[in-house]
Amino acid sequence: MSISVGIYGATGYTGLELVRLLEAHPQVTIAYATSEGSAGTSLRASHPQAPDLALIPAADAPLVDVDAVLLCLPHTRSAPIAADALAAGTRVIDLSADLRLDDPAEYQQWYKVAHPAPDLLPVPYGLPEIVGRGILRGAKAIANPGCYATAALLGLYPLAAHNLLLPGAPLIVDAKSGVTGAGRTPKPHTLFPEVHGNFSPYSIGRAHRHIAEIEQVLQPCGVTPGRLIFSPHLLPTNRGIVATIYTQVSDMSAARRAFEETYADEPLIDLLPDGELASLAHVVRTPKAAISLTAATANTLIVVSALDNLLKGAASQAVQNLNLMFGFEETTGLL
Amino acid sequence: MSISVGIYGATGYTGLELVRLLEAHPQVTIAYATSEGSAGTSLRASHPQAPDLALIPAADAPLVDVDAVLLCLPHTRSAPIAADALAAGTRVIDLSADLRLDDPAEYQQWYKVAHPAPDLLPVPYGLPEIVGRGILRGAKAIANPGCYATAALLGLYPLAAHNLLLPGAPLIVDAKSGVTGAGRTPKPHTLFPEVHGNFSPYSIGRAHRHIAEIEQVLQPCGVTPGRLIFSPHLLPTNRGIVATIYTQVSDMSAARRAFEETYADEPLIDLLPDGELASLAHVVRTPKAAISLTAATANTLIVVSALDNLLKGAASQAVQNLNLMFGFEETTGLL
Amino acid sequence: MSISVGIYGATGYTGLELVRLLEAHPQVTIAYATSEGSAGTSLRASHPQAPDLALIPAADAPLVDVDAVLLCLPHTRSAPIAADALAAGTRVIDLSADLRLDDPAEYQQWYKVAHPAPDLLPVPYGLPEIVGRGILRGAKAIANPGCYATAALLGLYPLAAHNLLLPGAPLIVDAKSGVTGAGRTPKPHTLFPEVHGNFSPYSIGRAHRHIAEIEQVLQPCGVTPGRLIFSPHLLPTNRGIVATIYTQVSDMSAARRAFEETYADEPLIDLLPDGELASLAHVVRTPKAAISLTAATANTLIVVSALDNLLKGAASQAVQNLNLMFGFEETTGLL
Amino acid sequence: MSISVGIYGATGYTGLELVRLLEAHPQVTIAYATSEGSAGTSLRASHPQAPDLALIPAADAPLVDVDAVLLCLPHTRSAPIAADALAAGTRVIDLSADLRLDDPAEYQQWYKVAHPAPDLLPVPYGLPEIVGRGILRGAKAIANPGCYATAALLGLYPLAAHNLLLPGAPLIVDAKSGVTGAGRTPKPHTLFPEVHGNFSPYSIGRAHRHIAEIEQVLQPCGVTPGRLIFSPHLLPTNRGIVATIYTQVSDMSAARRAFEETYADEPLIDLLPDGELASLAHVVRTPKAAISLTAATANTLIVVSALDNLLKGAASQAVQNLNLMFGFEETTGLL
Repeated sequence: MSISVGIYGATGYTGLELVRLLEAHPQVTIAYATSEGSAGTSLRASHPQAPDLALIPAADAPLVDVDAVLLCLPHTRSAPIAADALAAGTRVIDLSADLRLDDPAEYQQWYKVAHPAPDLLPVPYGLPEIVGRGILRGAKAIANPGCYATAALLGLYPLAAHNLLLPGAPLIVDAKSGVTGAGRTPKPHTLFPEVHGNFSPYSIGRAHRHIAEIEQVLQPCGVTPGRLIFSPHLLPTNRGIVATIYTQVSDMSAARRAFEETYADEPLIDLLPDGELASLAHVVRTPKAAISLTAATANTLIVVSALDNLLKGAASQAVQNLNLMFGFEETTGLL
Repeated sequence: MSISVGIYGATGYTGLELVRLLEAHPQVTIAYATSEGSAGTSLRASHPQAPDLALIPAADAPLVDVDAVLLCLPHTRSAPIAADALAAGTRVIDLSADLRLDDPAEYQQWYKVAHPAPDLLPVPYGLPEIVGRGILRGAKAIANPGCYATAALLGLYPLAAHNLLLPGAPLIVDAKSGVTGAGRTPKPHTLFPEVHGNFSPYSIGRAHRHIAEIEQVLQPCGVTPGRLIFSPHLLPTNRGIVATIYTQVSDMSAARRAFEETYADEPLIDLLPDGELASLAHVVRTPKAAISLTAATANTLIVVSALDNLLKGAASQAVQNLNLMFGFEETTGLL
Repeated sequence: MSISVGIYGATGYTGLELVRLLEAHPQVTIAYATSEGSAGTSLRASHPQAPDLALIPAADAPLVDVDAVLLCLPHTRSAPIAADALAAGTRVIDLSADLRLDDPAEYQQWYKVAHPAPDLLPVPYGLPEIVGRGILRGAKAIANPGCYATAALLGLYPLAAHNLLLPGAPLIVDAKSGVTGAGRTPKPHTLFPEVHGNFSPYSIGRAHRHIAEIEQVLQPCGVTPGRLIFSPHLLPTNRGIVATIYTQVSDMSAARRAFEETYADEPLIDLLPDGELASLAHVVRTPKAAISLTAATANTLIVVSALDNLLKGAASQAVQNLNLMFGFEETTGLL
Repeated sequence: MSISVGIYGATGYTGLELVRLLEAHPQVTIAYATSEGSAGTSLRASHPQAPDLALIPAADAPLVDVDAVLLCLPHTRSAPIAADALAAGTRVIDLSADLRLDDPAEYQQWYKVAHPAPDLLPVPYGLPEIVGRGILRGAKAIANPGCYATAALLGLYPLAAHNLLLPGAPLIVDAKSGVTGAGRTPKPHTLFPEVHGNFSPYSIGRAHRHIAEIEQVLQPCGVTPGRLIFSPHLLPTNRGIVATIYTQVSDMSAARRAFEETYADEPLIDLLPDGELASLAHVVRTPKAAISLTAATANTLIVVSALDNLLKGAASQAVQNLNLMFGFEETTGLL
């Protein structure tokens, strides 16, 4: 079985990765790729290693002629296209934030704008290792998680799900990301000379929007919203996220077992052996996350969660979700 | 008044900075500089911007002919020279770890080797903004603090000294350092291709040696040893440390006031205005530390402390200490 | 004697360096600094290490109240302000290209726009080591050279002036520059992820605008226009230019002597000893150029010329010119 | 048909790439991998993304049990193993310099040591696009070209072979390489802080050893040895070479046609369209070279030749050669 897809927003960093992965996917054909700024040119003009793929404006894209669309668009611009696609019977994987939060009020609170298509909600949250494959297989629409959210959730979920987090203590996620996480639109703070030789925190504490989706996933496990402290920093490199996560656990041995059980059979999660710490070198340009556990004190467990923000944090996770949606083997085109 | 000094270990990154600062210091003359590996050559051969300074082996250095020696040597190699210098009536600023811990047993525990000169202990700890100038002025020997320890203590001390830290909660210091912090001896993990594009934690939790000196300073303020969690990471850049510090405070307003009071008149500490976060760009190539405060929740205060590991974390702090030792204005040669 | 100056375009990379240098200059006071995009804010908001200097729009700047203006503006925007300043009796150092070419037709050919103030031309070209101090001392206006042009001319002029270049053979300048050379306005190709891990030629051959000013200086020495091949490349670093220059000389010994004679007494030119090659490490963050000579064959001389594009290639050379203009010691504020 | 191979020197940067490529090669099995320094450990301990491959010392490697050995060893250490392998009937692809020069006297002149196995010479030089596939198909031993030599030859050979180079004028190759080209043994000048923010020429003119193999290939086309000027520079990045090559050609149109004819059917050479310049972004992490042509003057042609030093400059070219040696499709495992 083979499907055809449309990729929206193909010239961004995530779009480029998605094109690269799906070009090599044995069961997927890219029917078209869209770009507003570069419509009329070839994708190769945007990146010298990209394939020679004609770019069309989203308005010209034939929604009905494909089996699915993958949306690498800014939030608020993504949901309306998702709505059109679903109305046309075309499935949707949305890499923007538009479909991640079940509650439109929550969206409005964090994104400071009314939800553009509240009728679509809720949509399954596409973090297969955590939400399980059941709700993703055959889904009509999947919300692809945020890059930081994926890193944080992979490090926190096994503890939360096994009820091993000591009540009260904050969950501290100190995260560091490469610059592609900020997108490809030129901005003063992502100019090369501003980043090279620099390292800077931003939106630390309770300010970053990914907090909402992380808490939405953890809340059913009993993690009260508001406990999460999330501090992102901008790394002077292109790709990858390392999240250093500080937790207080009730039982250190059980904590390690919880990770082992959760990820034992996961082909895309590397739970590192004792003494080896997860780093960007483990994961950059791979579809995998690496996780290490360090018992700092009797109750303080430091989880380091690393992944490539453009792959497990975006494009390769979208391919996992696409595979599940259409009943393909989950890692097809990835390993 | 003018003094002459000898610099030991001048070809390392800290030594080079110290030479640069003291060459420009109006009241200091560099009488000699030592190197074992490069003795017989000029310092300029080790770095194209360094002055043309002849390097001699430490064994040939005329200890008695200078007013002070500044020791940029590995631990265990520093203390014996400090002992000789003091015996000869020459003052000492030791940038190694040898004189930082008051208790030789503590040294042995963290450095896994017997203290090379326990009779010298204790020695004033040269973090002027925290220990006060009283014990540094006129001191015969000063232990220059570790780079990470300086960053952590500048961020934690005002809270500890004002008794604002909630009891029990761990003190979490997530620190990131440029590669010069690892020294100039070639090692596999500091090769350019290993660091470029990478970001990696190391010695996280309760493993890094600077924990000992941080806790030694905080303990008299009532911070029980063992509470500190300290996680260093290697940044793909040359210089600078950012420590993101997570604390639970009893009174957020009092916490801010504690920082304001502690650093109000400090010329080398920039307490940033609300909303501005400390970054490497604030401090690299300056003798200053920058500190920002972010109230993440009612009780969670995130302190970001940034400094140049080779300057406020080493060489310029040594110059502060030298100035205090000899009664010069503290910032001479620095501002 | 002391003067007051206005700095136009202070938030760009060159403007920031100029502010930094002139803040520390013992005979200069900065009366005001302009910015269009950031007027109404402090310069410190544009760069955390900059001084707290109020920015005003150029239109509000009191031209008559200062002794000189330094213009760090885009070409075509600079000359009209220069004209106003000169009309008001205020001297001008123009860091743009507007006043560099004597012939407005030449300007139109290379910059594809009519010269905005042809009546101002010609203006002395402020490369003191080459044009001599005579025409710069007391000048009313000085055209500050381009960064690439400075690097190329410092490497070629001694050979041209001593008539040592074999006729006919092309003069090949293979130049590499850090990204600050592209300015601080966000553009797609200077985004961090586009430059990191990349290295790219641009405008190679006979296309780059600095060819015009290089040839203008060399032509009186008998170098026919059209012989110069100039190939710039973008380096994945912030600062500095290395120009590797391939020449055919008639007499290798005379060539070395020509460099020695030209630069023997120049405090800001380091002619390196045989066997040492000029690199960015020699010059970054210094007001100096470093030059090395390598005899590759009997007649092929490779000149490597290195400088900091923001300093000897822009701001510190402007200070040299300002010092000469007002009769100060040329290196005041620089060494 | 399927073969088994041994990889010598697997922990170096080239060895790691070769393991990665051959692990994915459908017709090759890696029988063993050697390392002296890391024997007894897994290759994964040397690089977190490497497969879990046991490393043995070269002395323990069963030469006779494999169809071919690939030698990623330092020069002088490679040829003796090649000799043993060939004596045992095992084929050899040597990535060191040992088998590249036909004349042992030439080897001694450039490498300053007697050739370790002169009886093996000459060996086919494995640059398929230039030497042709005839001498590589079925060869018992192949000398894999140097990384710089591959870049230079791909840019010069079409002109030389078509007799388009004007006599007399030097052939100037200004080359820039990422730091992996210097190998993985820690050395002072490849430490991260020495390279970051720096850019430096080395061995420029007529000093670099790759000159010998470049001239050996060009000489039969009538290029007199001694004409080549080759100037390498160290780039602050990990991977890739850009060679900017300055030539004087007798006929510009014929020159472009020569490139088109030479590379028209080459799947691993991208001859870029007019106006697009080859850069690292074109080639890094690909087995391809990119070549651009710029007519700077009537006779001056600038060829920019870019490739990944670890791939087309080493490991992927070795796979091309292995494929040819055993009669596989040349790009198997590469595209």
